[in-house]
Amino acid sequence: MSNSIISDLKEALGNEKVLTDAAVKERFYHIWKMEEDLEALAVILPVSTEDVSTCMKICHAHNQPVVVHGGLTNLVGSTETNPNEVVISMEKMDKVVEVDDSSRTLTVEAGCILENAQMAAAEKDLLLPLNFGAKGSAQIGGAIATNAGGLRVVKYGMTRNLVLGLEVVLADGTVLSSLKKIIKDNSAYDLKQLFVGSEGSLGIVTKAVMKLVETPKSRNAALVAVNDYHKVVKLLKHIDAGLGGKMSGFELMWNKFYDTMTDEKSVLRPPIASGFPYYVLVESHGGDHLADQETMERLLAEAFDNQWIEDGTIAQNSTDIEWFFKIRENVDEVVTRCTVDQHFDISLPIPLIGEVINQTIGRLKELDGVEHVFPFGHVADGNIHLIVGKSNDSDQLKNEINAIVYAPLQAIGGSVSAEHGIGLHKKAYLNLCRSENEIALMKTIKQSLDPKNILNRGKVLDI
Amino acid sequence: MSNSIISDLKEALGNEKVLTDAAVKERFYHIWKMEEDLEALAVILPVSTEDVSTCMKICHAHNQPVVVHGGLTNLVGSTETNPNEVVISMEKMDKVVEVDDSSRTLTVEAGCILENAQMAAAEKDLLLPLNFGAKGSAQIGGAIATNAGGLRVVKYGMTRNLVLGLEVVLADGTVLSSLKKIIKDNSAYDLKQLFVGSEGSLGIVTKAVMKLVETPKSRNAALVAVNDYHKVVKLLKHIDAGLGGKMSGFELMWNKFYDTMTDEKSVLRPPIASGFPYYVLVESHGGDHLADQETMERLLAEAFDNQWIEDGTIAQNSTDIEWFFKIRENVDEVVTRCTVDQHFDISLPIPLIGEVINQTIGRLKELDGVEHVFPFGHVADGNIHLIVGKSNDSDQLKNEINAIVYAPLQAIGGSVSAEHGIGLHKKAYLNLCRSENEIALMKTIKQSLDPKNILNRGKVLDI
Repeated sequence: MSNSIISDLKEALGNEKVLTDAAVKERFYHIWKMEEDLEALAVILPVSTEDVSTCMKICHAHNQPVVVHGGLTNLVGSTETNPNEVVISMEKMDKVVEVDDSSRTLTVEAGCILENAQMAAAEKDLLLPLNFGAKGSAQIGGAIATNAGGLRVVKYGMTRNLVLGLEVVLADGTVLSSLKKIIKDNSAYDLKQLFVGSEGSLGIVTKAVMKLVETPKSRNAALVAVNDYHKVVKLLKHIDAGLGGKMSGFELMWNKFYDTMTDEKSVLRPPIASGFPYYVLVESHGGDHLADQETMERLLAEAFDNQWIEDGTIAQNSTDIEWFFKIRENVDEVVTRCTVDQHFDISLPIPLIGEVINQTIGRLKELDGVEHVFPFGHVADGNIHLIVGKSNDSDQLKNEINAIVYAPLQAIGGSVSAEHGIGLHKKAYLNLCRSENEIALMKTIKQSLDPKNILNRGKVLDI
Repeated sequence: MSNSIISDLKEALGNEKVLTDAAVKERFYHIWKMEEDLEALAVILPVSTEDVSTCMKICHAHNQPVVVHGGLTNLVGSTETNPNEVVISMEKMDKVVEVDDSSRTLTVEAGCILENAQMAAAEKDLLLPLNFGAKGSAQIGGAIATNAGGLRVVKYGMTRNLVLGLEVVLADGTVLSSLKKIIKDNSAYDLKQLFVGSEGSLGIVTKAVMKLVETPKSRNAALVAVNDYHKVVKLLKHIDAGLGGKMSGFELMWNKFYDTMTDEKSVLRPPIASGFPYYVLVESHGGDHLADQETMERLLAEAFDNQWIEDGTIAQNSTDIEWFFKIRENVDEVVTRCTVDQHFDISLPIPLIGEVINQTIGRLKELDGVEHVFPFGHVADGNIHLIVGKSNDSDQLKNEINAIVYAPLQAIGGSVSAEHGIGLHKKAYLNLCRSENEIALMKTIKQSLDPKNILNRGKVLDI
């Protein structure tokens, strides 16, 4: 049967689009695991939606499981494969189809690298607000399939909020195309919502129309120290109300994170003294640099008068802004301090974050094998990242750490994944944030759209 | 069988929650048709999610079609009934459960009137940005079921963007509850997206957690005249970039609309001279009234220098703002000029609106029986409303008008409904903006969730 499907694929698509054997082994399944050979029956390199459709018709006829590969930056094992799976890699479908500066839309193929899409928008003085660390490798299709978040969700929303139109190939090869540049559409069910965040398990994104925004004329930032989590929440409300729609970032760092990012081993100096319990990085995207700077100064002065902040500094120029952001974004620095690192992206109600995360830190530190806990994150979105440094990569320690981090979430209505998705690695914990009825309905949806369970089989849900 | 289901419902819910016969006839199916008796087998008045679930279990067992009634302000016939249908009216489930000012969330029962929810948020100095004309009657559950839009979508998004958590009762009575106060959740499929905008055909919304925002500290507005649609688009980009995230409204009125709203028969005086082709109402929600006023003045001066605007005035106080907004919102004034009125809420790519709408106006005017065409709308969202005044209510004229208004939409990637939904009245036109494959997938979804087709049967889709 393997031979039969490969010859069918080669016949339909041409030999050059169907890699097998040694050509498969030269590839990899994750950008951090380039040294590990890819295990797959074949890798398909479509150049068009029609190719993807043709491939899926054949795979569907053969009951052949398929895994879609984008930029391979996923953090939950969604792109892992086994030797019997066919990989469809979107890398050749990498074109920016159109930037329309009046509609303020970007039409793009799914394999387009996020940074290239951002640059195409920037050439027309528009901003694709979707932005995260892996932008140089991640593809738009993958960002859509995982509903990627990032640093500016508080102003611009998750990927879901930026997708206006979508073209998807279904499990049986049906092409579902709705590449419209319109912003509002209540003509029956909004089908694209099904595919955004479905992690390649309901359909294959081939093209998209993304919403662009006017490039902000000014960018301002400040870094402040806070001594109590309740004051972080007060500061958030104060800054958000005061900036009146311009707040584009409100990022929290616990002292352990900030201190490590700016200690003597780091290349980054501390903009304000270390030793405070919390540090907040505030960013605004506005229309007038000077006026926005004055607003930021006034808001911080008010916060100081109210004793919500202990210390603070305002970026005086773009070098300062880059500096502040590196302290928040350059997580490689804390990773290098870990023998082995384990990452989390949990979601919690904002007022509960301080108490819950501090309890979690305490419990983790009591665990044998845990060396560091670095908490930070998009606190205005209720999304906290934890990097846990540990002495070994044993499954036992990993599971113990997972158990501690995930334990409080069910009772407080949190989520085991704010941004990264479920994939393979979090599947066992899905029932901590989704009810039996919810998981049953998800399975109903999966079975309706992919009755043969050939799209990313075994990921997200167990069918 | 009718008797059997009614006795089952009365036994399970209690007599007082099950209206029949004369008590049914005292009710109505639309707030504009209060004089017409409601036709239904029974009206159920649940006071809890459990009641809704119990009712649906019984109706499901009896294959009994059900129509949900909210505030009955829907514009596409979604709440129409026949004598064999059971109505579930959400009016008793009208409570605000909680306003959480730290999470900035509102937890609410589906039957809560929008304006009451807004007031509950305002008491904690928070804003529920969902806002539209029918807010005094419309219920939150209906707004969610129809993904309602309104005047401030450009800043705050449609209802979909404001729903954080949802509780829904499925066709078989299963309760799907996820009333979380978290902002980001990528734990597998985002099921709530299925129900938002499904017009009561996939499930019954019983409770929701809505996102609130800080109440804007300042509100500014301006009204300007423009002589060319291309300049409207330039102005939009200029104002949006200049306000840097504070633009909360950018509303377009064609001269016929503006002139009628401010002519000598109207109670409203014109803030700027009539006779220009287009009028734009700009609003900002910001953090500093004076600074925002200065920004608005500078932006308009720049627009004037660039010859994008011909005339303009800035609101000096809240009375002015109310005055400008009444000119845009008080559509009853144009309705009174129509013998019979027919309403549209189409969606188009922004750069094409001027040409397409002006051609549509021309074609409509050539039609015997058309007396007026009043175009206006949320141009920053690509959403144009048309009110067509006509001499009679014949189906022939109605269909001819529909044909003209909808004709250009397919070729330009528009939609027959930006906000109001499909319901009964637009079902025949759904194929103008959705492909065969899309409609087929919608039917697959409907059949998976409601295999007996008992939820709002015959609305949205023909099964």
